[in-house]
Amino acid sequence: MSELRALLPEWVVPVCPENEVLDGHAVLIEGDRILDVIAVDQLDEAYPGAVRQALPGCALIPGLINAHAHSAMALMRGLADDLPLMRWLQDHIWPAEQRWVGPDFVRAGSELAIAEMLLGGTTCFNDNYFFPDVTAATAVQAGMRAVLGLPVISLPTAWAQTEDEYFSRGLEVHQSLRSEALLSTAFAPHAPYTVSDSAFRRMRELAEEMDIPIHLHLLEADGEIEGSKKEHGLHPLDRLDRLGLLSPRLLAVHMTQLTPTDMDRVARAGVSVLHCPASNLKLASGICPVAELDKRGVNIAIGTDGAASNNTLDMFAEMRLAALLAKGASGDPEAVPAARALSMATIHGARALGLDGEIGSIEKGKQADLVAVQLDHLQTAPVHHVISQLVYACSSRQVEQVWVAGRQVVAGGELQHLDMERIARQTREWHRRLADFE
Amino acid sequence: MSELRALLPEWVVPVCPENEVLDGHAVLIEGDRILDVIAVDQLDEAYPGAVRQALPGCALIPGLINAHAHSAMALMRGLADDLPLMRWLQDHIWPAEQRWVGPDFVRAGSELAIAEMLLGGTTCFNDNYFFPDVTAATAVQAGMRAVLGLPVISLPTAWAQTEDEYFSRGLEVHQSLRSEALLSTAFAPHAPYTVSDSAFRRMRELAEEMDIPIHLHLLEADGEIEGSKKEHGLHPLDRLDRLGLLSPRLLAVHMTQLTPTDMDRVARAGVSVLHCPASNLKLASGICPVAELDKRGVNIAIGTDGAASNNTLDMFAEMRLAALLAKGASGDPEAVPAARALSMATIHGARALGLDGEIGSIEKGKQADLVAVQLDHLQTAPVHHVISQLVYACSSRQVEQVWVAGRQVVAGGELQHLDMERIARQTREWHRRLADFE
Repeated sequence: MSELRALLPEWVVPVCPENEVLDGHAVLIEGDRILDVIAVDQLDEAYPGAVRQALPGCALIPGLINAHAHSAMALMRGLADDLPLMRWLQDHIWPAEQRWVGPDFVRAGSELAIAEMLLGGTTCFNDNYFFPDVTAATAVQAGMRAVLGLPVISLPTAWAQTEDEYFSRGLEVHQSLRSEALLSTAFAPHAPYTVSDSAFRRMRELAEEMDIPIHLHLLEADGEIEGSKKEHGLHPLDRLDRLGLLSPRLLAVHMTQLTPTDMDRVARAGVSVLHCPASNLKLASGICPVAELDKRGVNIAIGTDGAASNNTLDMFAEMRLAALLAKGASGDPEAVPAARALSMATIHGARALGLDGEIGSIEKGKQADLVAVQLDHLQTAPVHHVISQLVYACSSRQVEQVWVAGRQVVAGGELQHLDMERIARQTREWHRRLADFE
Repeated sequence: MSELRALLPEWVVPVCPENEVLDGHAVLIEGDRILDVIAVDQLDEAYPGAVRQALPGCALIPGLINAHAHSAMALMRGLADDLPLMRWLQDHIWPAEQRWVGPDFVRAGSELAIAEMLLGGTTCFNDNYFFPDVTAATAVQAGMRAVLGLPVISLPTAWAQTEDEYFSRGLEVHQSLRSEALLSTAFAPHAPYTVSDSAFRRMRELAEEMDIPIHLHLLEADGEIEGSKKEHGLHPLDRLDRLGLLSPRLLAVHMTQLTPTDMDRVARAGVSVLHCPASNLKLASGICPVAELDKRGVNIAIGTDGAASNNTLDMFAEMRLAALLAKGASGDPEAVPAARALSMATIHGARALGLDGEIGSIEKGKQADLVAVQLDHLQTAPVHHVISQLVYACSSRQVEQVWVAGRQVVAGGELQHLDMERIARQTREWHRRLADFE
């Protein structure tokens, strides 16, 4: 029988229901699950044997879910900035990737990224990069939850040469991870302009069979629509529709180029939108119409994108930016209030990934993916409203404790299962290699 | 003779010239000034007696300048969010101010704000609030540099009842601060829609005489233009022009409602723009066309606005947002590169305030307002480009040491001259008072 633990934060923010803040409540963890959420004054009677852990000054929130990451790219943080998307990709990122990407790069980059994410209160990430097997192994070691993208792209890379090889390697990774409780997979086709119709068709069938999502960069910048019309005679959304891909299984990253009709279509199809506000602004790709999509009931989750275009993996910063930008871009100061932004960074991410039965909120029976955020800090004082402080004022550095599936992975702001010195050393080595190459 | 000190950071980012990063350099401080910036290998010969302070892993930057703050409003951080500007002001902020603003509120709020700003690497702020004498005293106590706004508004407040009284109290504050080395003043008329022509005229004459800036909320939201046309028969810029206020003395805060013709006019007149991106987004006021103004050579500085509409006073976050938003809003990913954003947060702020001969860059003879930022941290690793990491990836929590006029005010991340326990206690007391009132 596993030990019964009671966390006693100052406030519990369960996220479901949205906008609720519980004072004087305890969250009980047994094994990997939330056993109960009850008033502290009932704790003695209901669970007399529970081992108590006080969390004074802290808000306990569900672990944040980074809905779109390229973890290993953390090593390319700030390698090339202030450039247009295509010059940035073609002159800097892709050449560096061609030269360097392999298991060692991905291991070092994933460790750096996972360390940063866990310390910042992110407990799950939806990754899209080469060598997902290596990122998976790193996540397991760190005790982090992850959805590993199985890359598909019509170009040879260090991961695979042909379409067939992308699929066979992807399926192999999928098989090898089936016994990992914290891991699952998604297909990760790069973008409509780099993936063939045949690959999309094959992927759709496999995704249904395997019951996994399809995680795709879509309508990131304006050139994409013209390009698709030229090459395929179709708008990308029409093409994906013909290929049977517009469904709740589709996780569409970016989506900055949407007409109102497109928005209706996306809403009707049940597509999830993975919103990356910092990256979209930095690359001047366009602005995702989050307020308008939210009004249509679209499930919008938040991602940092890779650190090469953000340049952090800080979900607190991203959540704040999503809330601010939705208002500024729509002209509606009531759009995406704080509690909705927090939902986007938690339960909406879970929903997109098909994991909302397990994570994304603090509810009885769910996995104990929990974050204690210290609000007794200048920058979040006074605490007039807990959720407002979490979204608009809090720094990721105020994360004190993090649990994934009931296991503590950050304690007192320190990582428990990763070696910070090794990460620092590896990062310095890769800095030198990349610098020599640039 | 005052002690000669040599700071030995990993990098010096002098800001002037823009985009320069010096490796292996020392910054010498004598008294309140920067005596020299020289290569470390010349230090022994040039300044054999200098007391060395190593700053391993740190970038030394000029102190950040928060060009627009309402410090005392830190107590109203998160009091009311997700509301339109006028409802936010009329239903929440103004009633709370009417009930509570006085010397005690302003002292407690200013202490909270100054503590947050200094810990985050801000060494100077341009304030606009009631009881500037009280904020001034708090800044002196903390060892922080400040420009205190002398409020003018055509409404009675706790600070003054009549136009005459605003001026007489303002002039009194100005006189009383003349001996304070770190303090100066600016007129702080609230906004065109709350200040009369006669007050603007009087202020213009006095400002010339006293040689101080005029710090005005201008074109924050779209209603302002229609309102001005109705009341004065003029666009606010035309009205200010007739009143002789469009000059380099004018610091125009917000400026989200500008046509290209307005931008040309602002550029020609030499008006400084104080850009508050977080507040503008949060209140959905509009977006200041920073890229376009920057191309026209307008001096753009960055401010946080009050914590009630931000909700932090974090200049690192604000600088990052300014850089990101300028790209996203203009569609130009090369707009406001990292180094320009850093200039906006330092030397441009100094220029707006008429203090660029003294602060805003690390140059021989300038005041030693310096900040050591620890870049040896996961979130800023690897350091491919120092300025990129400072602007796009760095957290204000990486500030380790802060000096104002050569005096250390933050050491090892700890405030030296303010009592954190008293601040926490006061903030809790004011939380209760404000909560009971709401």
